[in-house]
Amino acid sequence: MNLSPAIRWSSNTLELLDQRLLPEQVVYHRCTSAGAVAEAIREMIVRGAPAIGIAAAYGMALAAREAVAAADPGTTLATARQLLATSRPTAVNLHWALQRMERVAQGAAGASYPAAGEALAEVMVREAIAMHAEDLEANWRMGEFGAALIGETGRCSVLTHCNAGALATGGYGTALGVIRSACRRGLIERIYADETRPWLQGARLTAWELLADGLPVCLIADVAAAHVMRSRKIAWVIVGADRIAANGDTANKIGTLGLALMARQLGVKVMVVAPQSTIDFSLADGSAIPIEERAADELLCFRGIPCASPGVAVYNPVFDVTPASLIDAIVTERGVARNPSRESLVHWQTALAPS
Amino acid sequence: MNLSPAIRWSSNTLELLDQRLLPEQVVYHRCTSAGAVAEAIREMIVRGAPAIGIAAAYGMALAAREAVAAADPGTTLATARQLLATSRPTAVNLHWALQRMERVAQGAAGASYPAAGEALAEVMVREAIAMHAEDLEANWRMGEFGAALIGETGRCSVLTHCNAGALATGGYGTALGVIRSACRRGLIERIYADETRPWLQGARLTAWELLADGLPVCLIADVAAAHVMRSRKIAWVIVGADRIAANGDTANKIGTLGLALMARQLGVKVMVVAPQSTIDFSLADGSAIPIEERAADELLCFRGIPCASPGVAVYNPVFDVTPASLIDAIVTERGVARNPSRESLVHWQTALAPS
Repeated sequence: MNLSPAIRWSSNTLELLDQRLLPEQVVYHRCTSAGAVAEAIREMIVRGAPAIGIAAAYGMALAAREAVAAADPGTTLATARQLLATSRPTAVNLHWALQRMERVAQGAAGASYPAAGEALAEVMVREAIAMHAEDLEANWRMGEFGAALIGETGRCSVLTHCNAGALATGGYGTALGVIRSACRRGLIERIYADETRPWLQGARLTAWELLADGLPVCLIADVAAAHVMRSRKIAWVIVGADRIAANGDTANKIGTLGLALMARQLGVKVMVVAPQSTIDFSLADGSAIPIEERAADELLCFRGIPCASPGVAVYNPVFDVTPASLIDAIVTERGVARNPSRESLVHWQTALAPS
Repeated sequence: MNLSPAIRWSSNTLELLDQRLLPEQVVYHRCTSAGAVAEAIREMIVRGAPAIGIAAAYGMALAAREAVAAADPGTTLATARQLLATSRPTAVNLHWALQRMERVAQGAAGASYPAAGEALAEVMVREAIAMHAEDLEANWRMGEFGAALIGETGRCSVLTHCNAGALATGGYGTALGVIRSACRRGLIERIYADETRPWLQGARLTAWELLADGLPVCLIADVAAAHVMRSRKIAWVIVGADRIAANGDTANKIGTLGLALMARQLGVKVMVVAPQSTIDFSLADGSAIPIEERAADELLCFRGIPCASPGVAVYNPVFDVTPASLIDAIVTERGVARNPSRESLVHWQTALAPS
């Protein structure tokens, strides 16, 4: 891969590749405070559930550094956590990352600032870097598990939605990690990428990533998915996830539910690829997953140019929930859950706690 | 309705509302030759199957006027017909309109130009005007039939795709005609309009039309359709058609197949609304309907601004075929075919011939 990474940590600064500007401009947005990271998540400078989790971890590391010189370090950390936790509602990796960072902070609870503060900040920076590296490694594992699944059905074309790639993770990607690994094994004829309105993650980010790797990507309008599934020998729809309930119901980019409904009737299989930290065992099923709605402007304008009738009401949910019954396999770094259910996911539960 | 009509005929000139520029600019494009009309159809200055048919009829009327002064009037008419027939491939109303105009021309066959030419031109202009008026009347009838169907299931919200409205027809609309009539009866709570990438007919045209009528339209991204069907009490998906095979298989704007697949599994009904001239009894089923592909630029740029990764391959089919088995009702000006099939459509066949 010859890609600029989505997330860089350098000289105690978090640098986020500004995904609003891709692929035209490769610009890094520098964050030196937790508040700036929360803002960057909210504004989608960084996006993708795993990448949001990693950014939030670095955000807490920045907060720990801010706390060293703060009058009330505890409040500084608590405020940072609150800001980051509420930056976007649907992805659960964010909360998992914040919990993990909190446990590290609690390990130093009671220590007096500023002396202990310096040490704590250092530990938290190291933890965030470790989480970043672990995510990348998890992506490689998911890639192998998912490619093996595709190997079972044989060489085929696949369809993906949104961007669950290097840009959405610590690197390599979840859904696109599987596609990369499967391409390396010669299993993929062509990758159809939905453009993914309104934010065009597919057209801007997935196409860019896969082209950079020299992979055979073909862009389609979201509305062409059913026609493509029926006419282009698609064997798998492969997507990421923002939150998976204990029974396997999966919140992912809006449009995933529709793809799964089409796929089931057209004989196409659905693979969800996500790190284990995406599974929210506190939710019995998908009905309680909060669905973010974003601004009407995402549908009314493109780069400031009107693209809809002015004054029209807009409903802009950006995730939907696909029932487990429409998912053929959930792939995590721990392995594959076929026909996912509470029973097949539960044995992954203990491993959720940070190591 | 307070809308500018899509098609006007005035002083032997065809004026087409330039739908590429709506809703920002209301500009009429003047055509004084059949070639100019064919070009306007190809460039989507006029679009929508019934509107294309009417424009083609006026195109033949313009050709008849050109033929009066032509050295070889027969060639002039034949060339015009060929140009118009090949302007777009999927909508069959175009061919129906050209056939009907040809029969009128044949009624004067053998008459010598230029004397008989003037008379022929006048007859052909009158025929085109009649077809335009008949289409409007047909829309009103479809509106009543479709609204009665909605009345059976009760007050509800509906979802529509692309633009099958006044702008796509002689006026009033097919799918939007049904929605207008149902709104008048108090049957519609809210109309969800897919934005309909890549051309944004829903965002630009359907939203504009329904807002002009003061109707409760809400714009959604195409990818939100399944989530909206599941969460917003949608009882009907209501769409137009570009070509219906003898067994009820229906070609319509790309995305319709996906909506029908979702609707069937989510307990939502699908209504196709189109004039009888949309039914192509020469095709046993939908497999032989030609599917137009349009330029990659429709996905790569918006108003000249890049919106995708440069150099990515694009597949841009603009229609798909929905099997009759996924359609609950086809509504024409002659009535309603429930669970459409060869048997339920065949009794409309004779009426297809121009009156």
